[in-house]
Amino acid sequence: MLELMKRLVVGRPLSNDRLGEQLLPKRIALPVFASDPLSSVAYATQEIMLVLTLGGLSYLYLAPWIGLAVIVLLAVVVMSYRQVVRAYPSGGGSYEVATTNLGASAGLVVAAALLVDYVMTVAVSVAAGVDNIISAFPQLNPWRMLINLGFVAVLTAMNLRGVRESGRIFAVPTYLFVLGVLGLIATGFIKMIFGDAPVAESAGWRVTPEPGHVGLTGLALMFLALRAFSSGCTALTGAEAISNGVPAFRAPKGDNAARTMAAMGILSITMFGGITALALLSHVRYVENTCDLVGFLGNCATDPQRTVIAQLAAAVFGGTDSPMFFYIQSATALILILAANTAFNGFPLLGSILAKHRYLPRQLHSRGDRLAFSNGIVLLALVAAALIYAYKGSVTSLIQLYILGVFTSFTLSQVGMVRHWNRHLRTERDPAARRRMHRARWINAFGACFTGLVLIIVTITKFTHGAYLVVIAMPVLFVMMRAIRRHYDGVTAELVPEPGGMVLPSRIHAVVLVSRLHRPTIRALAYARATRPDTLTALTVAIAPEEVRQLEREWDEHDIPVSLTIVDSPYRDITGSVLSYIAGLHREHPRDLIVVYIPEYVVGRWWEHLLHNQSALRLKARLLFQRGVMVTSVPWQLESSHADQERAQDLGASAGLTG
Amino acid sequence: MLELMKRLVVGRPLSNDRLGEQLLPKRIALPVFASDPLSSVAYATQEIMLVLTLGGLSYLYLAPWIGLAVIVLLAVVVMSYRQVVRAYPSGGGSYEVATTNLGASAGLVVAAALLVDYVMTVAVSVAAGVDNIISAFPQLNPWRMLINLGFVAVLTAMNLRGVRESGRIFAVPTYLFVLGVLGLIATGFIKMIFGDAPVAESAGWRVTPEPGHVGLTGLALMFLALRAFSSGCTALTGAEAISNGVPAFRAPKGDNAARTMAAMGILSITMFGGITALALLSHVRYVENTCDLVGFLGNCATDPQRTVIAQLAAAVFGGTDSPMFFYIQSATALILILAANTAFNGFPLLGSILAKHRYLPRQLHSRGDRLAFSNGIVLLALVAAALIYAYKGSVTSLIQLYILGVFTSFTLSQVGMVRHWNRHLRTERDPAARRRMHRARWINAFGACFTGLVLIIVTITKFTHGAYLVVIAMPVLFVMMRAIRRHYDGVTAELVPEPGGMVLPSRIHAVVLVSRLHRPTIRALAYARATRPDTLTALTVAIAPEEVRQLEREWDEHDIPVSLTIVDSPYRDITGSVLSYIAGLHREHPRDLIVVYIPEYVVGRWWEHLLHNQSALRLKARLLFQRGVMVTSVPWQLESSHADQERAQDLGASAGLTG
Repeated sequence: MLELMKRLVVGRPLSNDRLGEQLLPKRIALPVFASDPLSSVAYATQEIMLVLTLGGLSYLYLAPWIGLAVIVLLAVVVMSYRQVVRAYPSGGGSYEVATTNLGASAGLVVAAALLVDYVMTVAVSVAAGVDNIISAFPQLNPWRMLINLGFVAVLTAMNLRGVRESGRIFAVPTYLFVLGVLGLIATGFIKMIFGDAPVAESAGWRVTPEPGHVGLTGLALMFLALRAFSSGCTALTGAEAISNGVPAFRAPKGDNAARTMAAMGILSITMFGGITALALLSHVRYVENTCDLVGFLGNCATDPQRTVIAQLAAAVFGGTDSPMFFYIQSATALILILAANTAFNGFPLLGSILAKHRYLPRQLHSRGDRLAFSNGIVLLALVAAALIYAYKGSVTSLIQLYILGVFTSFTLSQVGMVRHWNRHLRTERDPAARRRMHRARWINAFGACFTGLVLIIVTITKFTHGAYLVVIAMPVLFVMMRAIRRHYDGVTAELVPEPGGMVLPSRIHAVVLVSRLHRPTIRALAYARATRPDTLTALTVAIAPEEVRQLEREWDEHDIPVSLTIVDSPYRDITGSVLSYIAGLHREHPRDLIVVYIPEYVVGRWWEHLLHNQSALRLKARLLFQRGVMVTSVPWQLESSHADQERAQDLGASAGLTG
Repeated sequence: MLELMKRLVVGRPLSNDRLGEQLLPKRIALPVFASDPLSSVAYATQEIMLVLTLGGLSYLYLAPWIGLAVIVLLAVVVMSYRQVVRAYPSGGGSYEVATTNLGASAGLVVAAALLVDYVMTVAVSVAAGVDNIISAFPQLNPWRMLINLGFVAVLTAMNLRGVRESGRIFAVPTYLFVLGVLGLIATGFIKMIFGDAPVAESAGWRVTPEPGHVGLTGLALMFLALRAFSSGCTALTGAEAISNGVPAFRAPKGDNAARTMAAMGILSITMFGGITALALLSHVRYVENTCDLVGFLGNCATDPQRTVIAQLAAAVFGGTDSPMFFYIQSATALILILAANTAFNGFPLLGSILAKHRYLPRQLHSRGDRLAFSNGIVLLALVAAALIYAYKGSVTSLIQLYILGVFTSFTLSQVGMVRHWNRHLRTERDPAARRRMHRARWINAFGACFTGLVLIIVTITKFTHGAYLVVIAMPVLFVMMRAIRRHYDGVTAELVPEPGGMVLPSRIHAVVLVSRLHRPTIRALAYARATRPDTLTALTVAIAPEEVRQLEREWDEHDIPVSLTIVDSPYRDITGSVLSYIAGLHREHPRDLIVVYIPEYVVGRWWEHLLHNQSALRLKARLLFQRGVMVTSVPWQLESSHADQERAQDLGASAGLTG
């Protein structure tokens, strides 16, 4: 049953040799890798407005300056990463840069930040996508959570089906979104020039300021502005995506990636700047608490406000029933879901690299039926779904956890790049190359300072709004990965083969555990005997005297050619009695091998497990701790197990399994 | 840690030879076995009043008649069971009577009814006991649930410590209760004769009738009366307890038990009749919904009403701060908790008998460290605690589930007794004996009809109030027990040894599974070699080509004297590939034995399990389904496992375990 469902969702297994590399031209690579950074312009503007309007409409005069700061930051980060893709074309991205230049610990910090980041990308992008769908169809609002989780499920299934399908066709929505937004901005400004300025549906609404946010001055005002700036920095999320995808570019990989990076930066800046300007000029109102909107139609406690993009599209293209409005909304929702999908590519890949470096359990390094890293995909989906559920699918709440990880990895990779150039400058003699390196070092140093500053600002302004969770999660991840690595390293050191090859144990003592005299027992005795051990003992534990007497009687009747050893257990502790017998045997013959044979029932139905083997299982688990002992299960397949087995084989065959 | 806690709660293990039988004189047997039936008079009266006052105070005129009907029923049941204890002195009670005379299915129905019954005895008695404690100390009301669950936990721990301690000392509270209640009734009536009639605290309160219960006539009135009667039948719960305890009586067991039964009946009738009369004469008011009480002091939504016993004690002995009031309340609470304790004796015993007859999993038949049937005790405690939790510790709600099971077993055992006499009358020739049998048959026949009628009344009147759950639970239990028995029977038949003794397999093929070349692998190869198999294969599954190449290189370097067999697995399915290799081997050599050696890590910390052995475990589980295969675990104890092992051994030693 489970197997059948898996096949339906995941598809037929794929063979190893289908794992090829396909190289992408720039015009495809841009949309494939840039859906994440480009999609973030869909929510960055509204997050800035939301923080500023906490104090009513009066602080909106700060918005253009904050927008400008975000744009400068975007430019700096893009320029910095253009250096990264040229210097590290292997696609390891920030993790590789930090590990190589700053050491394993810094690399692990980046890894922890990126893992958090990928999870947040899924959660925020899906939530924002659903938000835009609900802006177009407000009647879907009651099912917000269901739609969110549904999208996560669909993304999971798609990715479990394999990387191949998640490639090229994903270029289309990105272009649809870019064209749509650029068209929206252009149309809006053209209308403005012709005196027909678009007016948002919320333009006439007033905003009740939150208590404690009225008439701020000095430090308090600066803090609010910095908080709004931190929110706006969400526009930068995903900017490093291209640096992880360099190997997929055509040669010269580095240069092509750098050029794509520049294109992405220009598009991001244009779109973010355009949307922010248009939103301010058409007087869009967007607040944290809908009930603070004076003029809002409907029940502010339950009805949602429309996203900024939706309000702009409606204002520019003539209402919420124009075809272009629906086009913009569907393109926005689509690219956001797509951005979530890039995390479904990135997280399992990073997870598998970390597992290969033994920082994560090795299950994350094995490819599933369809060549995708299935365990990583499922893990990502579960955590993201839990976050969406915990934060009720609210973009604003989720975003607080997002930017911290992003800027941690930005900062560390830029610092790493500075050390990279320092190292190279020590050996490089060609003056032209040195000049180029000096320039690149300046860019990265500036980037490191700038993103580091933003990291501090973000941590301070967002800490109490949820970012503290990330401040806890990243060190926990870090410590966990270190502990896993230490464990694996310890095990590897322990297991290095000794010189001298195999040492055979001198003698073998076989012990067959007997509870009653039935066919499984007889089979176990026969099998044990067939291995020709030096001694063969049939061992039973006396719990109830009458049962032991009956066993002895049957033993004689059936003429069993092995003598029965009875150990007394006045405290009715089968496990303890067997263990102490085996321990005694081991003390007597410390250089010999003891093989314990346990006759075991194999049952076909889950509830039958409750009726059998309970003490055998407990005993087996404990015996494994004993030195010089092997534990052999002699299975007896009960009738009920055949049906199950045949079913499994039928299914395996029908699903193309060799089993 | 767990072991240590277990020792603290349960005590040191007890040896088998401490399992003796101690015989009880009648004066001890009465309180030991009759705490359950006697304690039920603590709640029977108030349950009658509660139903009648649904229609206001006007229907209370029915109460004496209903009380009388309950008393007649009590007399009939006691007389019937006096026949049972004489005819079946082995203590099997209703289960034995029904099985012997009506067949295994009827016996199973009774068993299902009794199992439900025992659970309800615990739940109702504990809840009623706590109710009486709270009547004395109303300030404890907020912790009602906690106190309830606390008592269940204490009872569980006491019973896990063993039967012995749960014997004689339990006679005291029963006598305290009987004396207290008889004293209460006597004092009340003497006061009345001297013109100082006790007046309950609630005597002046009026009752708002529930909608739909005003001015009932004809059928509707009769239905209400029958419902009140059904509630009053709770006075009969536990009446069969003595019939299960006959083996503990001194000889002549049957006669002594019958006499004790009579004493119990007379006490029950006196106490129930006295309390009911006193309650009516002192105008006690007790309602289902406290907010229907006009005059109730305090917040009716949160504050509890006092139990009928508590109100009477306060009225007779002069207020809720008189010493006698506290005496009555503590004696009542104590005997109710004790009644729950009898179920803790009865349920595990019945469970072990059913497990011995293979109707329940055999774990229920094994005695724990302290000679008690630990699994049954824990199971009972869990189910009872869940019920108390689900019904918020409300006696009135729980009681709806109680009486159905009681009367099912009453009826079936009485019908069984009729057939018992019929059978004996066919062979008996002695006229005196025949006369006695005829008389006994009449008693049992009357008992069967009467209890059968009550069963029908109870089912109809209580069905929608919760009894439907029991109507579902009993058949489910019945079907489950039948299925378990069928399964065990099938297995036994399958496992009967074939004539001809052992057949040794002709040849042995050893297959050692190899993932990497490390010490566990080398040890597994050495062990496998030491058993001198006919063929020895080192098998590895090729997932990643580079890993296989490295393995081959290391294999050569270390000069392993066994050749390495590599099976290809393009679909990365280790389990499937190994299974298909083994299946192929089995097809080639169907009469040979295949031994699969799996090197396994033994780890000491729970989280290390996540990092190892995942595929080994999966593989082992699947290999057991294969015919002609033995699976041998070759454990490799990692460093971390020693600490754990030593800790376990220290603890075992300090706790007196041989291990």
